[in-house]
Amino acid sequence: MIAFISQYISLTEEEKEIIKGQNLIRFYPKGRILLSEGDLSQDCYFVLKGCVRSYYLVDGEERSTEFYTENQGITPVSYLRKEASEYYLDCLEDSYLALGSEERNKNLMEAVPKLSAMLLQMSNDTLIENQLLFDDFKKLKPEMRYLKLMETRPELFRRVPLNHIATYLGITPVSLSRMRKRISDKA
Amino acid sequence: MIAFISQYISLTEEEKEIIKGQNLIRFYPKGRILLSEGDLSQDCYFVLKGCVRSYYLVDGEERSTEFYTENQGITPVSYLRKEASEYYLDCLEDSYLALGSEERNKNLMEAVPKLSAMLLQMSNDTLIENQLLFDDFKKLKPEMRYLKLMETRPELFRRVPLNHIATYLGITPVSLSRMRKRISDKA
Repeated sequence: MIAFISQYISLTEEEKEIIKGQNLIRFYPKGRILLSEGDLSQDCYFVLKGCVRSYYLVDGEERSTEFYTENQGITPVSYLRKEASEYYLDCLEDSYLALGSEERNKNLMEAVPKLSAMLLQMSNDTLIENQLLFDDFKKLKPEMRYLKLMETRPELFRRVPLNHIATYLGITPVSLSRMRKRISDKA
Repeated sequence: MIAFISQYISLTEEEKEIIKGQNLIRFYPKGRILLSEGDLSQDCYFVLKGCVRSYYLVDGEERSTEFYTENQGITPVSYLRKEASEYYLDCLEDSYLALGSEERNKNLMEAVPKLSAMLLQMSNDTLIENQLLFDDFKKLKPEMRYLKLMETRPELFRRVPLNHIATYLGITPVSLSRMRKRISDKA
């Protein structure tokens, strides 16, 4: 976590100790549900190791919307808006997550004020990433979306079951298998 | 603009005068292109009145990705990343926009420091909005996306040509007309 923060801002030894002293890191086993539809989320997360998925239940079917892996922050809409969550978060792997809460973040920000500049930077970075992903989703056909995901996040194909990747790409698992076969036949 | 900022933070009369004194507001006629693919964007915008569209050119076809209307900020990826833009911005209506640039924003932030808290809040708000829109795009079928847009931004159907709305929804203009006919026949 210190290494990650240090990408954005430089920390003094004292500040590093304050952050370490917060004891924010928790272990969650594979399969653990962190947030359910209808829950009010009190926590936000930062993935140190592992993989967390967000998904909606639509007519009884899971539609995956994101896979969060190392060095990604997870800020549930429910946490920010203080409303019941519309989606789920579950661990696809054994995961080590750093936990944040409004109170904790406030205390940490007071102890290490320059963290707030980092948060603005992170928020902007995430905003750009999401805008570009969304743009791709709107402008690319499913096969191009698949190829782009293979290019940008190849490790997901080892870590995430293909049926989750299919709903994430907005296609059926059958279409995804066909697409993969067609592309590997070509290669 | 003052009214918009006042939703987030309370401004003293003096601070209001500083902001007004910046003379940030510009008029752009309908059809004006604010940003082209390949350009380096030096400006970000805030829509006071009018409608600005973002779109990509994909194989010679325009794919609309957003329609920015009153009280929405436009922060081009090119502006944030200092890279050539991959997309276009054009005015679909005569528009009054407040202009920002790195230098201007920095000066304004120094003159009215509490604006930075507002920017973090706005950035978070936009992040949530975008996440929810993107989630909808992934979890809803085109017809539901259309109905949702009708519900959340009905004015777009008066202000934006239907062929732009179709590409925004990820469908062809022909599918959109059919969908609209089917739904109005039902009603």
